[in-house]
Amino acid sequence: MNYKEFSREQRDAELGNLWSEYNGIKEKGLKLNMARGVPSPEQLALSLGMLDILHGDDCRAEDGTDCRNYGVMDGIPECKRLMAQVMGVTPEMVMVGGNSSLNMMFDTIACFMNHPVLPGHPAWALVPDRKFLCPVPGYDRHFGVTEYFGFEMIPVPMDENGPDMDMVEELVKDPAVKGMWCVPKYSNPSGISYSDEVVRRIAALKPAAEDFRLMWDNAYCIHDLFDDHDEILNIFEECEKTGNIDMPIEFCSTSKITFPGSGVAAMAASENNMKVIKEKYKYQNIGFDKLNMLRHVRFFGDFEGMKAHMKKHAEILRPRFDIVLDKLSTRLEEYGVVSYNRPRGGYFVCVDVYDGTAKRVVALCKEAGVNLTGAGATYPYGNDPHDSNIRIAPSFPSLEDLSSAMDVFCICARIAALEKMNEQGLA
Amino acid sequence: MNYKEFSREQRDAELGNLWSEYNGIKEKGLKLNMARGVPSPEQLALSLGMLDILHGDDCRAEDGTDCRNYGVMDGIPECKRLMAQVMGVTPEMVMVGGNSSLNMMFDTIACFMNHPVLPGHPAWALVPDRKFLCPVPGYDRHFGVTEYFGFEMIPVPMDENGPDMDMVEELVKDPAVKGMWCVPKYSNPSGISYSDEVVRRIAALKPAAEDFRLMWDNAYCIHDLFDDHDEILNIFEECEKTGNIDMPIEFCSTSKITFPGSGVAAMAASENNMKVIKEKYKYQNIGFDKLNMLRHVRFFGDFEGMKAHMKKHAEILRPRFDIVLDKLSTRLEEYGVVSYNRPRGGYFVCVDVYDGTAKRVVALCKEAGVNLTGAGATYPYGNDPHDSNIRIAPSFPSLEDLSSAMDVFCICARIAALEKMNEQGLA
Repeated sequence: MNYKEFSREQRDAELGNLWSEYNGIKEKGLKLNMARGVPSPEQLALSLGMLDILHGDDCRAEDGTDCRNYGVMDGIPECKRLMAQVMGVTPEMVMVGGNSSLNMMFDTIACFMNHPVLPGHPAWALVPDRKFLCPVPGYDRHFGVTEYFGFEMIPVPMDENGPDMDMVEELVKDPAVKGMWCVPKYSNPSGISYSDEVVRRIAALKPAAEDFRLMWDNAYCIHDLFDDHDEILNIFEECEKTGNIDMPIEFCSTSKITFPGSGVAAMAASENNMKVIKEKYKYQNIGFDKLNMLRHVRFFGDFEGMKAHMKKHAEILRPRFDIVLDKLSTRLEEYGVVSYNRPRGGYFVCVDVYDGTAKRVVALCKEAGVNLTGAGATYPYGNDPHDSNIRIAPSFPSLEDLSSAMDVFCICARIAALEKMNEQGLA
Repeated sequence: MNYKEFSREQRDAELGNLWSEYNGIKEKGLKLNMARGVPSPEQLALSLGMLDILHGDDCRAEDGTDCRNYGVMDGIPECKRLMAQVMGVTPEMVMVGGNSSLNMMFDTIACFMNHPVLPGHPAWALVPDRKFLCPVPGYDRHFGVTEYFGFEMIPVPMDENGPDMDMVEELVKDPAVKGMWCVPKYSNPSGISYSDEVVRRIAALKPAAEDFRLMWDNAYCIHDLFDDHDEILNIFEECEKTGNIDMPIEFCSTSKITFPGSGVAAMAASENNMKVIKEKYKYQNIGFDKLNMLRHVRFFGDFEGMKAHMKKHAEILRPRFDIVLDKLSTRLEEYGVVSYNRPRGGYFVCVDVYDGTAKRVVALCKEAGVNLTGAGATYPYGNDPHDSNIRIAPSFPSLEDLSSAMDVFCICARIAALEKMNEQGLA
């Protein structure tokens, strides 16, 4: 049943059937959303106990700080400790911020734009041909930040082990290359985790730019779907060995652990980097929301509590990933017009549809009431050279909606592939 | 009893008495703090009901948004409306942010550093001789932000009506002058509110720099001590009249209304300015803490509820201001070595001690266990040309502690004045 083996007549007949199926679906007026990695109401309900966990006068941190009042720029000690465990670093390396790790990443790049991360080097705003390495497919909001600050973004292809390190090692010889975005575990969107060899080669980089920095967005560090989960090497430990301790800056948040938008974000970095970053925060903010930090710590008790909580998320997420993968394997795979990953964590299934049809598939889905992440969004400047990559976010819809949405997706992928083959004049 | 009329002998005798009094105090080992405008525990207790006001699944904004999840970049509608009333603007002009208006001010300047507020003009980072007007005495954290971003700060003296407008009108003829800090109501630290004439002259400014912006920090807009409170003109209404609607950017927060560090901050600006600012936030953050916005709206009900709440703050604050003013008038004024304001709101009493003694007074107080804002902090670069201005923050200590602290302050101010007169060889 591989479409590539179809004759023109077979394709036309198939298209006829698919169009009538598609039009039938359109009439239902679906409104389904698989666009963003957004937790479902069932997942949000897991954390409701956090909402009213603080009462009355019992708002002191373990060191006696009144969390209701001003102060404590880098976070209360028990929250620094918890976020340090999440990232596998020491509490001294941690700064707890506001509600968003994206905001901390943006602020970090913003900081280095005007204040050199390495004293004596020019601030990045003064490097007109500044560049940033962007493993692809990747996270659109990362690319947005570096685009906003005028970096030329250089796509680096990912394989099942992480970014193409031969290419990275070559690219960092350019002193205008100032950094690289990384989602090392359950990468957004491919779901792959960096192999030990890739992490070691990253740690061993010798960039021409001494102020080259890794934006190590460990967004899915404890977001496993299975007990048998991926493990990545600790970037700080590896960089310690290679004398590169100032290279990585790590980020994480509880946005997909408790409440997106009302979570706690944190970053970790070497003493040298933290000095520059905290010098900025000293002027930027008197201290982030300590009551929300305390809420988190009280709710989880400790890191073990947080990990147990993540197992509940996994139980809600697994069936959703199963539906997506099941539909792809039973309703699409046989036509030979799709390849996809089977992630063991994170929030996405990354699908490559027939070359040159991703935009068309997304548009067809939209017309039928199924909203997907824009085609190309996973590439810098929205430019997917193969126009094939689509990010599916299965977390938010109900199981039933997800099932319907995937049916639509599979039909649209088939239509678009057949159309393209006709266009290409395949026999 | 004016010290200026004392002979050298009288001064020495007086100093002898004061030193023994001072040493007696030092032995008590006081630990009192009047350094920062920090609400007292009694004030924080006013908002405890907010902590557990959200429960279960009842976390939807009036437009149906699930406040527990991602989204809504500029704030939920009911919170925008509330903060709009606080600032006297329309909700469309408002962006609700995180927990800190200082953070929003920092981010605004940071934004304009790399992205022109007025398209076609150079971003401020590209103006090497950039300058900012700083009414003095003023807020140290404002000055910190513009110093961090490399602005030359030009002090502009304040009188009882606001900044010296003759001077401001002259200074803005320099195209490198990009803005001015203003705390228009109950100014930090002087407590004065800008007169109608001053606000009108500010609104009528014709700066050489078309991208000159007012940082209108309305931090104390509803922070009145008395029913008979100061009123300032609405800066946007005045700027509308003069064709300067793009000049002001207003800021406020609930830090001193609910919980400092866990409040809600907001800004208001014209459509043109907001376009540039929101273009930044689009990349910076997926949306600020909507649960905290909802907490605030649910707790107050509406703006009337918030105003009633502020009366409770005033009841707690008034006796503290009374103690400070009473001590100054009964224990210091007669010696002719002090002048001070009698604010009708805000968080500070601004004291001018004998010229050239502010640093000494602060040091003496510290040695006796009373912590004050550093002398000079109310001037750019910490440079008070008269070394006379001291900011007293009476909100945090208990009435008893405050009374003791002010006794210490008055003695130290007298000692320092007498020492200085001796130094000056006054007859």
